[in-house]
Amino acid sequence: MTRIALLQAQAEPLDIGANLAAVERAAAQAAEAGAELLLTPELFVTGYVPARIRAEVPAEAVRAAEEQLSGIAREHRISMVHSLPGPESPGGRGIAAVLTDQQGQSLLRHQKVQLFGPEEKSAFVPGAERPPVAEHLGRRIGLLICYEAEFPEMVRAAVAQGADLLLVPTALSGDRAVVEILLPARARESRAAIAYANHCGREEGLRFDGASVVLDADGSVLSRAGEQPDLLLAQVPAPAGPGPEGPWYLEDRRADLHRRWL
Amino acid sequence: MTRIALLQAQAEPLDIGANLAAVERAAAQAAEAGAELLLTPELFVTGYVPARIRAEVPAEAVRAAEEQLSGIAREHRISMVHSLPGPESPGGRGIAAVLTDQQGQSLLRHQKVQLFGPEEKSAFVPGAERPPVAEHLGRRIGLLICYEAEFPEMVRAAVAQGADLLLVPTALSGDRAVVEILLPARARESRAAIAYANHCGREEGLRFDGASVVLDADGSVLSRAGEQPDLLLAQVPAPAGPGPEGPWYLEDRRADLHRRWL
Repeated sequence: MTRIALLQAQAEPLDIGANLAAVERAAAQAAEAGAELLLTPELFVTGYVPARIRAEVPAEAVRAAEEQLSGIAREHRISMVHSLPGPESPGGRGIAAVLTDQQGQSLLRHQKVQLFGPEEKSAFVPGAERPPVAEHLGRRIGLLICYEAEFPEMVRAAVAQGADLLLVPTALSGDRAVVEILLPARARESRAAIAYANHCGREEGLRFDGASVVLDADGSVLSRAGEQPDLLLAQVPAPAGPGPEGPWYLEDRRADLHRRWL
Repeated sequence: MTRIALLQAQAEPLDIGANLAAVERAAAQAAEAGAELLLTPELFVTGYVPARIRAEVPAEAVRAAEEQLSGIAREHRISMVHSLPGPESPGGRGIAAVLTDQQGQSLLRHQKVQLFGPEEKSAFVPGAERPPVAEHLGRRIGLLICYEAEFPEMVRAAVAQGADLLLVPTALSGDRAVVEILLPARARESRAAIAYANHCGREEGLRFDGASVVLDADGSVLSRAGEQPDLLLAQVPAPAGPGPEGPWYLEDRRADLHRRWL
């Protein structure tokens, strides 16, 4: 059983100080509630404003924010997933997600491979490395970012490395089928629990859906937020094999053939 | 717009004559209703009884049934998808699905690649060819069989050949998540309409779910059956590209990377 917390909130575009303060409050509250890990939304510390991030957020501001995030994890003795622009200069960086442990040490770093839409694609550089996976909190944790979790292949790539819990910072606006259909399918078809933390409210032009969710490995809902700001708590069961009635997708899939046909 | 009909019925185990008569009645009724194509369930002509098919159904009976199915299509001037054991001898055959045109000519033949469960695996030989696709009725039609549609890779393999409508004979028992979650995800993530025709009622040890369904390429339900026998009619819209808000999964997916990571 892994006790996790998800921050669902509206970020203040480019007000890094205010957003870090919101993360700190969430970390304190999550630790107080007994959570071992806090998951925060995609690009929460800057707000989800790709073109403005490219134009206005220098590399030094990103590095300073990362240090403060490590400090928050260390102070509240809680593992954390945060998402920021990469540490490179604005023209050469991607969207990152980072897993830190209770001492604020970085365990995993992922650069988003599947960028979404024209604004994101013109503001960031896509990654080319598979989603990383680490042993942590007694299980195997993988990182994906937002749109990536909509691709069955990205989830398979994490699960092929043994991931049993996928932590997904997201910024989802206007497509409820992602939460209601695609994520339950991803969990069930690849036997991985999924935690998916979204923005809510309006950040400049975009209105976010909230609806952050934690799914068990059979696709069933463990915990779900509405449209309002929330600190969502969930207990994710330990990983298990297939039940007596399956599904046995991971055992049965003929990956040698599938690979050739993709 | 393609007008299709799905037969949902209880087969009589190994009573090929009775099952062919049920197909003929469905073909007559479907043609009368204006359908251009009739989709029937997996192994409907023999009933879904793998071990008994292996032990008791000779190759000559299969070939004779196939000829009668061609005759039914020709007589009622309706395209048809049927599913039978392959034409080989019992020890060396797979589970087949065949698309015939309004003259009863075979257009596509598929041998199930993803066999389900121990009984099916001991009674049949798995195929190793990707799901086939043909231009027919003004669109591109692909064939998958039952369990295969639960694998995102199998649907991607058909869609990689341009399929926009997948016809799926099935024999589903006891897993409602397939119809409610996995198939809508398949349709939406790969932008293909899906028609899925199931058995209903009890055939020896198994009780089938019915719930045959036709989904549009965005995952929405066009037509859905209950648990009772039914001839389900649906009008499947012509294939279209992504809407102004997406999804753009087929355009955005980085298949070169995914293939390496599978």
